[in-house]
Amino acid sequence: MKRNLYLTTTPVEEAKAIYLDAIKEDIKPQSENVRVIDALGRVTSGAVYAKYSSPLYNSAAMDGIAVIAARTEGASESTPILLKPETDYVIVDTGDPVRKPYDAVIMAEDTQETDEGMVIRSAAPSWQHIRPVGEDIVEGEMILTRCHRIRPIDIGVLLSGGVTEISVFRSPRVGIIPTGTEIVEPYEDPEEGDIIESNSRMFEAMIRENGGLPHRYDIVRDDYEEIKACVLAAVGENDIVIVNAGSSAGTEDYTVHILREIGEVFIHGVAMKPGKPVILAKVNGKPVIGIPGYPVSAYLAVENFVFPVLRAFTGLKETQSRTIRAVLSRRLVSSLKHREYVRVRVGKVGGRYTAAPLARGAGAAMSMVKADGFCVIPQESEGYEAGDTVSVGLFGPEDEINRTIVCTGSHDLLLDVIADLMSGEPEGIRLSSTHVGSLGGLMALRRGEAHIAPTHLLDEKTGIYNESYIRMLFPGEEMILVKGVKRIQGIMTAAGNPLGIRDIEDLTRVRFVNRQRGAGTRVLLDYKLSQAGISPEEVEGYDAEAATHMAVAAQVASGEADCGMGVLSAAKAMGLDFIPVGEEEYDFAMRPETLGMPEMKSFLRLLSSDDFRSRLEELGGYSLEGSGEIRRIV
Amino acid sequence: MKRNLYLTTTPVEEAKAIYLDAIKEDIKPQSENVRVIDALGRVTSGAVYAKYSSPLYNSAAMDGIAVIAARTEGASESTPILLKPETDYVIVDTGDPVRKPYDAVIMAEDTQETDEGMVIRSAAPSWQHIRPVGEDIVEGEMILTRCHRIRPIDIGVLLSGGVTEISVFRSPRVGIIPTGTEIVEPYEDPEEGDIIESNSRMFEAMIRENGGLPHRYDIVRDDYEEIKACVLAAVGENDIVIVNAGSSAGTEDYTVHILREIGEVFIHGVAMKPGKPVILAKVNGKPVIGIPGYPVSAYLAVENFVFPVLRAFTGLKETQSRTIRAVLSRRLVSSLKHREYVRVRVGKVGGRYTAAPLARGAGAAMSMVKADGFCVIPQESEGYEAGDTVSVGLFGPEDEINRTIVCTGSHDLLLDVIADLMSGEPEGIRLSSTHVGSLGGLMALRRGEAHIAPTHLLDEKTGIYNESYIRMLFPGEEMILVKGVKRIQGIMTAAGNPLGIRDIEDLTRVRFVNRQRGAGTRVLLDYKLSQAGISPEEVEGYDAEAATHMAVAAQVASGEADCGMGVLSAAKAMGLDFIPVGEEEYDFAMRPETLGMPEMKSFLRLLSSDDFRSRLEELGGYSLEGSGEIRRIV
Repeated sequence: MKRNLYLTTTPVEEAKAIYLDAIKEDIKPQSENVRVIDALGRVTSGAVYAKYSSPLYNSAAMDGIAVIAARTEGASESTPILLKPETDYVIVDTGDPVRKPYDAVIMAEDTQETDEGMVIRSAAPSWQHIRPVGEDIVEGEMILTRCHRIRPIDIGVLLSGGVTEISVFRSPRVGIIPTGTEIVEPYEDPEEGDIIESNSRMFEAMIRENGGLPHRYDIVRDDYEEIKACVLAAVGENDIVIVNAGSSAGTEDYTVHILREIGEVFIHGVAMKPGKPVILAKVNGKPVIGIPGYPVSAYLAVENFVFPVLRAFTGLKETQSRTIRAVLSRRLVSSLKHREYVRVRVGKVGGRYTAAPLARGAGAAMSMVKADGFCVIPQESEGYEAGDTVSVGLFGPEDEINRTIVCTGSHDLLLDVIADLMSGEPEGIRLSSTHVGSLGGLMALRRGEAHIAPTHLLDEKTGIYNESYIRMLFPGEEMILVKGVKRIQGIMTAAGNPLGIRDIEDLTRVRFVNRQRGAGTRVLLDYKLSQAGISPEEVEGYDAEAATHMAVAAQVASGEADCGMGVLSAAKAMGLDFIPVGEEEYDFAMRPETLGMPEMKSFLRLLSSDDFRSRLEELGGYSLEGSGEIRRIV
Repeated sequence: MKRNLYLTTTPVEEAKAIYLDAIKEDIKPQSENVRVIDALGRVTSGAVYAKYSSPLYNSAAMDGIAVIAARTEGASESTPILLKPETDYVIVDTGDPVRKPYDAVIMAEDTQETDEGMVIRSAAPSWQHIRPVGEDIVEGEMILTRCHRIRPIDIGVLLSGGVTEISVFRSPRVGIIPTGTEIVEPYEDPEEGDIIESNSRMFEAMIRENGGLPHRYDIVRDDYEEIKACVLAAVGENDIVIVNAGSSAGTEDYTVHILREIGEVFIHGVAMKPGKPVILAKVNGKPVIGIPGYPVSAYLAVENFVFPVLRAFTGLKETQSRTIRAVLSRRLVSSLKHREYVRVRVGKVGGRYTAAPLARGAGAAMSMVKADGFCVIPQESEGYEAGDTVSVGLFGPEDEINRTIVCTGSHDLLLDVIADLMSGEPEGIRLSSTHVGSLGGLMALRRGEAHIAPTHLLDEKTGIYNESYIRMLFPGEEMILVKGVKRIQGIMTAAGNPLGIRDIEDLTRVRFVNRQRGAGTRVLLDYKLSQAGISPEEVEGYDAEAATHMAVAAQVASGEADCGMGVLSAAKAMGLDFIPVGEEEYDFAMRPETLGMPEMKSFLRLLSSDDFRSRLEELGGYSLEGSGEIRRIV
């Protein structure tokens, strides 16, 4: 199989329009009847009319007595009237029918029971406290239009209106074919070269959420005939078919060739990033969509190209996600070749939304878990500058973001622990942390893009952590430093320390992996190297950078590097040996007003909680002496 | 059973706090393990950590060749380098492992295949296009915190991180007991005095949407011992129990007495409207909540008191509905005795949101179906004036409102037909109509609260419909009148016309039901009465008002009135006889800029569509001559 190097790149909207037009004659949404009590979330395929009125009859709107209005005339505080039971009134509860000759209701509170009957002290006009027949729903009235997604209240009203069955769009079946010789089921133990198959399970959930019935096939290996046979079977059994992946131009990317042989391909390649290698095709009158393999590409391709087809079957309408305007914290360069979707974290700091771009790679699925939304760079734009105000389409509710502490700076596993503890609070508060190193965090704090900046920067002259850096970066401003933890930094190396590393001097004879510039751990390394009289050039791998303690640990665990510097908890988490180098102070810098945030109060409370203490003991390498102490830095 | 007249009315937040505090020791959320592929919508009960890194190994980020970076040094356009297969390079597809000694990838597009090997024209720095192990997810990393509701992307990332099973909160079982001798199942044919039981089905759906497992019991009649036995059984089988209704103070409202006997009642009555008669209790350590019977009360009571208890089991957080600021179209008076929830329709007219209050009765369930949201009048407020800007909590997405035509004015069944046709359009546009009569509609148009005003107002002097009214109400302004339909108005009376009504003169000897002031039908009646020399006082029921044609028809069908005036379609819908009185012109008034709205273009297109024509033929009594014609009124 030759590579199919040059995909065309049709703009997203154009590709969508071409495709929907090409398949529109083939899409025949079908209806089915369901019981109203089973209809939650289903979509009406036609208007629904009331069978009965509600109320069904004139009924009492209050608990009290039904009376003949004419006989209450003249009643007042000074001239009470005595009504006789059964002739002048009957007792009614709310909802009871009010029959002739009764034509008004007096509330129980306004009556006085005596042995002879009821005493009333004000007249009742006719129709008082009576709900006339059909007040709420009139027989024959249209209750719901077509294409309406059934909510709980609709179920209540439909039943009240005598409707027990409705016609809804049949949920389309969506066949999902995972392909690839290298992919394995999540339940097997993967080996080098294996990729865990996860996309199809994400698709199942996406389709279910959008009114479709997913039907996943077993993994098909990269074999032209096998994939072809599976696609042909799937178009027979489903309304829509997704093939994942093989949609690109690799040596084993058969999908487009197969679809050309057995059907018609309308689009191969769209001007979208991530997500370019999309195939939009039709086989035997059924839409077949080839989706790229990288998880972020896959997600975007399904959203942009499978969902519109799905909606043509389900009657659901596209709803725009809630959009906010946010200030971009970093420059974003994009190409005129495509529309680009950049995942961002959004925070509200000082009344202003800021958007921090996350990893942009198509494979960075974790960045989608962490993201609050997408910033879309249109195809005709070359990107945005830091400080530009951009639109962000949010994944979740806006008020979630308003209850989030934005934490930008140095990485430590304890941030995850606090985030976890905060999530457990009943108020639904969040900690959103981004790892840019200590100095990067303080800069973000200065730009008003973070509430707190975790930092561990040693002043070599004084031996005091963090304070002098804050003074330098926030001249003339009063700042707050909340003391965090003392933690042990050291050299992480393979279990059993096969290279016999003992201290900083040994770094000259091994392959090292470093942290990024501005990271406190790197500052510490530089300090220790200079103390030992070693220049960075002597350390192999000094320029290889990883962004977190865990990323360094992973490099060491995989054998890519012999050692790296980081905290004990990361070494323990990855089963590495650890040679302590020193203890440092990991604190939280913030502006004074941040202390007043309710979310911050929870943060501080959790920092001193027993839960936190015991979780840190489990992680190892921390001391909580002085933790939570608030220092004013001026 | 004595009435229990005086409920206390604890403020909503206070009642909630008292109750949650009273039951907090009894609520023990439980966890269970589920497969990740079944976890959509479930909520994590603890933090989730990655089992494997992703990628699992250093892998190719592009389709191309894996090379040894050192051997590519010096390659350029002028000095291409030939790489030999198997020694200098191997072919790799995206995701393939890159093993030693290879340490960089060159994209296929940048290579040229020859018989001897691959020619490259630029050097590859080491690590180029390689995704290092753990780039996306690092083994041991926290992927999700606790209390996180699983989304499709989470499923993908969990599986990629080797996690196949997670611990989630067990869904609490919620027992629902419908009580009442007068209530019948929706599947029975109701008779006078019967109320169709619909609340429990609405509760089932509400609970399902909020992470609970509803368990509905059969209807229990109003019998102290039977209800007591059912509550005792239900607390044995469920985590939470809802009793509906019998929570008020009627003669047969046993719930509170039963709960006092077998458990503890903390609150009976909250300062909330609708929804005051709520009971918050505990029986055998299980929360038992008494919910009022009116559907709107029931809905609000579940939202305010059942959901917080449910969340204590499910780990879900309260999310605030999206709130917008809207200009109130009518005065809203409320009492200091309670917090009031007023249902409103929201429209965006001329860039400004307006909120039109709907029926406020606790029984007006249909108003919740039609509502776009709630305007909450706090307990400490006596209400708002028309023109005040108020907060509205929306039920649905904001962009749905932005795509809605607000139609305020005269009622006709054809509005439902257009609304239905508009809902079927792929763009997801809506018609939201409120019935306030022709004149009321023109006033709303003038105040900028509606896009279009359907109107049928006869100028008795000229015999021309609508135009003179528009000129009078919009002096000096150019307005648009879109011609709608000609429709037949007449007298609706019982099937077979038992009273032998022949024309307007006969109205003096029967019981009539009128339309509200400002309704075109009433203007027509007044005209016909004056032509016939009859004064309104001679017509019994002239002052009895109904708001729509269908409401008039319902009054006649139920025998409350002998006849009323309205359109043929309404008479047909209710199986009534119809005596034609005259034909009138039902048109749409609007401002010129409204014609430019995309939603309006759809409206106009549908007005001339064959679908619309055939639906009107079915309804009967309409002529579409000149329909869609646009007249400028100056």
